[in-house]
Amino acid sequence: MASFFQIISGSITAPKGFRAGGIFCDIKRLGTGKGSEKGQKRDLALIVSDAPATVAGMFTTNQVCAAPVKVCAERVRGGVAQSIVANSGNANACTGAKGLADARAMAAMTARELGLREKDVLVGSTGRIGVLMPMANVQRGIQAAAQLLSSTPEHAAQAAEAIMTSDTKRKEIAVEFELGGKTARLGGICKGAGMIQPGMSATGARPAAGLHATMLCFLTTDAAIEKRALQAALEQAVANSFNRITVDGDMSTNDAVLVLANGLAGNKPLTLPSPRVLADGHQGRGDFAVFQAALNHVTLELAKMIARDGEGVSRLVTLRLSGAKSPADADAALRAVANSALVKTSWCGGDPNWGRILCALGYSPASVVESKVDVGYALPGSKKVLYALKQGRPTKVSFKSLCKIAAQKEFDLHIHLHLGRAGAVLYASDLTEAYVDFNKGNVGDPASMGG
Amino acid sequence: MASFFQIISGSITAPKGFRAGGIFCDIKRLGTGKGSEKGQKRDLALIVSDAPATVAGMFTTNQVCAAPVKVCAERVRGGVAQSIVANSGNANACTGAKGLADARAMAAMTARELGLREKDVLVGSTGRIGVLMPMANVQRGIQAAAQLLSSTPEHAAQAAEAIMTSDTKRKEIAVEFELGGKTARLGGICKGAGMIQPGMSATGARPAAGLHATMLCFLTTDAAIEKRALQAALEQAVANSFNRITVDGDMSTNDAVLVLANGLAGNKPLTLPSPRVLADGHQGRGDFAVFQAALNHVTLELAKMIARDGEGVSRLVTLRLSGAKSPADADAALRAVANSALVKTSWCGGDPNWGRILCALGYSPASVVESKVDVGYALPGSKKVLYALKQGRPTKVSFKSLCKIAAQKEFDLHIHLHLGRAGAVLYASDLTEAYVDFNKGNVGDPASMGG
Repeated sequence: MASFFQIISGSITAPKGFRAGGIFCDIKRLGTGKGSEKGQKRDLALIVSDAPATVAGMFTTNQVCAAPVKVCAERVRGGVAQSIVANSGNANACTGAKGLADARAMAAMTARELGLREKDVLVGSTGRIGVLMPMANVQRGIQAAAQLLSSTPEHAAQAAEAIMTSDTKRKEIAVEFELGGKTARLGGICKGAGMIQPGMSATGARPAAGLHATMLCFLTTDAAIEKRALQAALEQAVANSFNRITVDGDMSTNDAVLVLANGLAGNKPLTLPSPRVLADGHQGRGDFAVFQAALNHVTLELAKMIARDGEGVSRLVTLRLSGAKSPADADAALRAVANSALVKTSWCGGDPNWGRILCALGYSPASVVESKVDVGYALPGSKKVLYALKQGRPTKVSFKSLCKIAAQKEFDLHIHLHLGRAGAVLYASDLTEAYVDFNKGNVGDPASMGG
Repeated sequence: MASFFQIISGSITAPKGFRAGGIFCDIKRLGTGKGSEKGQKRDLALIVSDAPATVAGMFTTNQVCAAPVKVCAERVRGGVAQSIVANSGNANACTGAKGLADARAMAAMTARELGLREKDVLVGSTGRIGVLMPMANVQRGIQAAAQLLSSTPEHAAQAAEAIMTSDTKRKEIAVEFELGGKTARLGGICKGAGMIQPGMSATGARPAAGLHATMLCFLTTDAAIEKRALQAALEQAVANSFNRITVDGDMSTNDAVLVLANGLAGNKPLTLPSPRVLADGHQGRGDFAVFQAALNHVTLELAKMIARDGEGVSRLVTLRLSGAKSPADADAALRAVANSALVKTSWCGGDPNWGRILCALGYSPASVVESKVDVGYALPGSKKVLYALKQGRPTKVSFKSLCKIAAQKEFDLHIHLHLGRAGAVLYASDLTEAYVDFNKGNVGDPASMGG
C-alpha cells in the first residue's frame, strides 16, 4: 500500500483548514522547572479546524483514568469536534470532581476564545498525577495560544513541543494521498517517554488480550469520512501501532489518540466498508483502504518514535512471533518477553541472551513447549535470520555473529512457537541505568509523578 | 505461634542425623570465573540424612523447566529420599535429553559415593542456561564432597555457599520446637538474587492466581511426619513465603524447594489434620500446627533474605493489601504494583510516589475504583500508617513525613481497595541502577544467562 500515499513535510497543519500553536504558561510551576532548564518551554497546545470535523478516539483502559480522558470519551461519542486543547506538566489525574470540572473548564475557555461550542473542544493532559490544574495559568495560556494560531509547520511544531514531557524529540509526521481524484492529507503529533505500554480501546473496555506512558497522539486530516468509518479505521490503526509498543510495561492513566477529519479535501465522504473487508484488516482497493493504509503508516511511525525515545532507551527491538496457538497467546508470549527485566537489561548490554527469552516465554500465560521453540536475530526487516535456538536447543551459529546483530541500535527478534497459526509483532525498548536514574528522581520532586 | 518454637544457630545440620558439605569443582569454568574473583569458590553441595527421610517438594511452574526439576518432581512423588546434590554455575536448563540424563547421572554418582539407592537422591541446579553440565567436574566434586560430609554448622554453611550465584550473603536458619515431649528441629538454606518471582506448585500446575530466581531452598527436619502431611505443610508454607516475593518479576526455570524429614526426633509421626484445620490455614493446637508454624517461620525468613539480597536491591517493601473483591484480585493488584518499573524505581529513590501506585493498580487485572483506594506508608510491622491517599484523593499528610518512611531500608506499603474482603501480602525489592548494570552484563559473558 505504500505507493498509495507519500510522506510530506509538516504534521497537523499539513491538511487543509487546520491551525495550531503552542505556548508556555508555566503549568509546570509546581514542579521543579525542569522543563525550562531543558529549554523545553512550551506546555499548552491548541489545535483548531476551520470547519466542524468528524472525530474518533481511543483511550487508556486503565481503571484509574484522568479527567481529560473522561471528557474526551464522552465528546467523541457525539462524533463532531473542532478543537483540541492539551497541556503538559499536569496530568489532571486523581484529582476528583474538581479535576473533572477543570477539564471541562479548559474546553469552555478554549471554546470562548475561538467562538466554538464547548462540546466541540477536546482536552488532553500529561504530567504530574494528583495535583489540581493551575487554572489561572491555563486560562492565560489558552488566551495567548489562541492569538498565535497559524497553519505553518512551525506552529504545528510548537504544538508538538507543548505536549512533550520527558521526550527528548518532537514527534511529527504527515502524508498525502488521493481520494477519488482529490488530494487529501493526514498529519499527526505525539508524545511518550515513560509509563508506556498503551492498551487503548474506544470505550474504555479492556481489550481481550494483553494490556498495558502517557502517550498522547493528535491526528488531523482533510479527508471527508463518516464517523463510524473513522472510528473503525482508528481502532484498526491503533491496534497495530500504539497498542503494540512497550517501554516500561506501565499503562498510563492518560493515554489518548484523537483524530479530526474536517472534509475540506472535498472527496466523496468515505463510508464503513463491508464486514468482509473489515475482517481482512481493512485491506482492499477502495478509497477507504487508501485512507486506512495512510493512517496505519502515520500511527505506526509515531508509535515507533515513542518507543525509540522512551526514557533512557538505547535500543529498539522488534519482536516477531509466529506459531502461537491463538492471537491471545501470541500477544501474551511477546509481552512476557518484552517486559521481562532480565530480557530488557540484556538488550541494554547488546547481549543475545536467548536463555532469558526462553525463560520468559515459559512463564508467560501462553502455551509454550520448550522442544519446539526457535529464537533468532535479524537486522531490521531482514529475511536473513540467524537462529540461536532451534527446537529448544542451541544451534551452531556463533555467539559472536549473534552479538553483532544484538549490538545494533535496532534489531528484530524472531520467535517461532510451532504450536499453531497465530502471530504478533511488538516494538519494545531496552531497560537502562538511565531509565532508573531518571525515574528514581529526586525525593520530593513532584515532576516524578508522571501520568 | 511464635512461642512454640525458638530460633537456634546453624541450619540444615541442626536437626539430628543430617550431614552436609560444599566444595569447588569448577562447574563455572565455562563462565568467567566470576565466582572465584568474588571469593565465592564453592559450587557443589551435598546434603545427606543418616536414615531414609520423608520428602516433599514444590517446583517452578515455568513451562520451560530445567532437567533437575523434572527429576526431583518425579522422585518426590515416591515420598522417600535421603540425599540432595546441588550445584551452582550451570542450571542444566534447555539442555534437552542429554541434560536430563546428566541430572540422573549426578544422582547416580551421589548414590554410589554414599551407598544409597539412585532414586533416593534429589538434584538441584542453578546458573547458566543452555550449556551442558561439565560432568567430569561434577563427578570429581561429588567424590570430594562425599569425603568431607559432617554435621557441623560450618559444613552446613559450606553447602549454603555452594548454591550461591549472584547472592552476596549465605542464607541459613534453624528452629527448635517440641512435638509430644520430644525435641525436634528444622533447618534450611536457600539462594536467590535474580530471576526471582517464584510461582511454585507441587505438580507443576499453574496456581490459580499470580505467578511468576532461580531460587533453591533445601530444608531438613528430624520431625517424624507422614508424606501427605509434609507435602500439605510445605504447600501452605511456600504459598505464604517464597511465592510471595518478587525481585524482578521473572520466574525461573529452576525454582525448587525440598524438605527432608528423617523422623530421628522420635515423635509420634505427624499426620494430615482434618480438612477443617487445613482450610483454616493449618492453624490449631496440635503438634501439626506447631510444625506448620515452625515451617512457616523458616520459609518466610528465608524468602525475605532472598528479597533483601536480590541483585542490586537497596530496599525491601512489604505490600499489604486489603479490601479486594477476591484473593485472585488481591494477588494481581499487588503484583502489578510490585513489578511496575516506575513504582520500583521510585522506591529506589526513596520517593513515596503514590501516583505510580494508583496507576499500576488501575491497569492491573483486579477490580479497582479510584474513588475508594487508600494508600499509606508505615515502618515495618507498625500499626501507625501514614495515609498519602484516602478514597482516591491526597490527604493532608505532609510529603516530608511520607518521605521519612520511604527513605528507610525497609517499609510497609498499605493499600485498601474497599471493594471486598480479600487481602494479600507481597515482599518486593526496588529496581536499581546496580540491577541493570549487573544484568546487562558484558556481551559474551556466558554467566549472564542465569537460571
